[in-house]
Amino acid sequence: MRIILLSGGSGKRLWPLSNDARSKQFLRLLKAPDGTPESMLQRIVRQIRESGLDASITIATSAAQKDAITNQLGNHVDVVTEPERRNTFPAIALASTYLSLEHHCTRDEIIVVMPIDPFTEGSYFQTIGRMAQAVEQGAAELLLMGIIPTTPSSTFGYVLPALDEGKTGIFPVARFVEKPDTQVAEQLIAEGALWNGGVFAFRLGYMADIVKRYIQVGSFAELHSRYLELPKISFDYEVVEKATSVAVIPFTGSWKDIGTWNNLTEEMFDCAMGNVVIGEDAEGTHVVNELDIPIVCLGTKNIVVAASPDGILVSDKSSSPKLKPYALRFNQRPMYEERRWGTYKVMGYNLLPDGYRALTKILCLHAGCNISYQYHNRREEVWTFIDGEGRLALDGQVTKVKRGDVVHIKVGQKHAIHADTLLQIIEVQMGSELVEEDIVRLDWDWSDKSV
Amino acid sequence: MRIILLSGGSGKRLWPLSNDARSKQFLRLLKAPDGTPESMLQRIVRQIRESGLDASITIATSAAQKDAITNQLGNHVDVVTEPERRNTFPAIALASTYLSLEHHCTRDEIIVVMPIDPFTEGSYFQTIGRMAQAVEQGAAELLLMGIIPTTPSSTFGYVLPALDEGKTGIFPVARFVEKPDTQVAEQLIAEGALWNGGVFAFRLGYMADIVKRYIQVGSFAELHSRYLELPKISFDYEVVEKATSVAVIPFTGSWKDIGTWNNLTEEMFDCAMGNVVIGEDAEGTHVVNELDIPIVCLGTKNIVVAASPDGILVSDKSSSPKLKPYALRFNQRPMYEERRWGTYKVMGYNLLPDGYRALTKILCLHAGCNISYQYHNRREEVWTFIDGEGRLALDGQVTKVKRGDVVHIKVGQKHAIHADTLLQIIEVQMGSELVEEDIVRLDWDWSDKSV
Repeated sequence: MRIILLSGGSGKRLWPLSNDARSKQFLRLLKAPDGTPESMLQRIVRQIRESGLDASITIATSAAQKDAITNQLGNHVDVVTEPERRNTFPAIALASTYLSLEHHCTRDEIIVVMPIDPFTEGSYFQTIGRMAQAVEQGAAELLLMGIIPTTPSSTFGYVLPALDEGKTGIFPVARFVEKPDTQVAEQLIAEGALWNGGVFAFRLGYMADIVKRYIQVGSFAELHSRYLELPKISFDYEVVEKATSVAVIPFTGSWKDIGTWNNLTEEMFDCAMGNVVIGEDAEGTHVVNELDIPIVCLGTKNIVVAASPDGILVSDKSSSPKLKPYALRFNQRPMYEERRWGTYKVMGYNLLPDGYRALTKILCLHAGCNISYQYHNRREEVWTFIDGEGRLALDGQVTKVKRGDVVHIKVGQKHAIHADTLLQIIEVQMGSELVEEDIVRLDWDWSDKSV
Repeated sequence: MRIILLSGGSGKRLWPLSNDARSKQFLRLLKAPDGTPESMLQRIVRQIRESGLDASITIATSAAQKDAITNQLGNHVDVVTEPERRNTFPAIALASTYLSLEHHCTRDEIIVVMPIDPFTEGSYFQTIGRMAQAVEQGAAELLLMGIIPTTPSSTFGYVLPALDEGKTGIFPVARFVEKPDTQVAEQLIAEGALWNGGVFAFRLGYMADIVKRYIQVGSFAELHSRYLELPKISFDYEVVEKATSVAVIPFTGSWKDIGTWNNLTEEMFDCAMGNVVIGEDAEGTHVVNELDIPIVCLGTKNIVVAASPDGILVSDKSSSPKLKPYALRFNQRPMYEERRWGTYKVMGYNLLPDGYRALTKILCLHAGCNISYQYHNRREEVWTFIDGEGRLALDGQVTKVKRGDVVHIKVGQKHAIHADTLLQIIEVQMGSELVEEDIVRLDWDWSDKSV
């Protein structure tokens, strides 16, 4: 049995903590059993490992998320990166092909696809085990998990089960209704409909045959390079709704979407995270502060406050699901990112009247890591080293750098930095255009570059 | 007639906008008649000038506030700076002596002392005119303004008027009660007591005689240098409560202390100042944002949000008067200051595990202004020029500097900068101790230093 975890897109519903560079599943806002904070990603992987399911995990995601995943789970996690975002059918097709052609799984291998972000309990994974067993026993070619609806929500797909004649707890699917309005949803729930939980079980050969209709490849690399030929469509529309042999197993335990602030705060690690003071007369107040400056809350009731270098949200909890259109107004560059080599945080951004820009960042490089050899066409950079020791490559010359050193990197000047210890740098970028994309990367091998 | 405006201390009740370097009276949060924002200081000076009172204004304040006052009112304003903060009696003694010995006012000159921060209307200044007239006509040696109480507040001094036998509207004072508890205040109000509005009128000679009891000086400079000999006591305790000939004139117009967020928001320029988005379902929400990043408020009711480089306040309006003890916890360096030469804003502060510090600021120098020739004993500085042109003096050598230039100023290295145009600099300070006081200033004359 193989589990494919779908690690989805950016999401603005937890702005300002989630952004284009940091998806909600990476926010360490939940509480692990050992009392430390953990992310949705860390939680679900821990839960799978604790569940007793005999399954190895493959995470299907975008290249942009790979660094964050390995930072949180370690280097040994199995990650398939999509060349670009194209919806869930191509993503699952890519991951299935990867398991088939790289891991040499057989056509009989049971595959379970699941989302990364439900907040749920241990019995969820027992239901997954029953889904896999049902596929194995031939109950249906495709098994879904049905969630018991709690409200007539119009954001879910609904699955209407048919009669379970054999009393097996495995229900054939009568029909699907995708995101009905509230009135229709109420009617469906009265008829016994379930939410489609986005968990699917099938044999690898089942998916392979569907993929073959679009594209036949000889290697995983070939599918990766021809990824654009796969249709931009969801797995639900392309596979689930067309399936002729499909059944659903209801999950009756607790299950919650914690992708909005009001739901997330119910499960948050602590009501005050970061530099926060909550006055004694505040009630139901949750604050996450990723800024260095303090937040003080006085007399607030049922409020969530979230602050990051991207912005500050102050929301009545009940209004927080309405955040998305407001957050979409701020289509700015990421102000904080976790990278393979460490993190950066934007300290300030100055747009001058003539269009010239200055961007000030603090870079923290992990010991032993390095920023690749590169140059910029549109910006110069000033690096002031405030902590640690490292080696700087500048137009091919390597020198030692340490606290107190200053380097001015001109436009076109090739540079790389290797951290011998934890290295902290204040970087001032200057130029008429300051974008992450203005990087020309070059080969460089640190192993033969001692000073 | 001379008006002495008392420009008081730092105040934490409007944290995070007010701090040790920026008092509440300098916040440009009110609305001038021409539709632009103005500060409490600018408002009261404008009101005095519009009132028709034939009075010149002297502002009594600390040296730390002088730059902010001249930035807001221009260079021609008359400012007396106290050598240190010692309460209102010494401050008024100093300003009175200044008027007597520097402006050569006579003992008969009518002096009106008033606070800088009441939010009031035009008739307030007519009452001041009547107080001055009452002193002139000998109704009493000392005239007070009484404010009609609106609540049994325990933060004010109360003045109990005696019978106005001549029906002149000028009441002899029966007694004073300083900051009574609410119950006593209620009783006092029932007996017709008024709040002491902190406005006093007297002849200059009256005050001069009181000052002489403590110290006799031959010049203003002498009093300035012997300022510590004056007792640290309020004008109310030292003068008002001991006065034998004292009367009060009630002011019946609108008068408000806008030194707390709930009161200030009622008079604020706009409900959203700075980079702010208020959602359509928010009510009674006021936001002041001095940060570059956006603030979004959704569904909030009767909330004030204030953000500056010092911190972020989110408060129910009714709880905002309780702010002070919370704000006092943050005894940090100023993160934003207006100076004679321009402004600085702290972008980031990094305290490293071994106690070494880095502080990143953006400096904006007005064209024609300069930072004095100086050196530091405990820090080095890196200046990256992101806009404008100027001249840099470094160990006696003057060079032109412009956008893109970088200067590394080592410990002990003498430096000054003159802005030929508006000049913007990203400054990184590094050292084991980073305090504003680590500045050794030297003489330097830019007039003969062209390049």
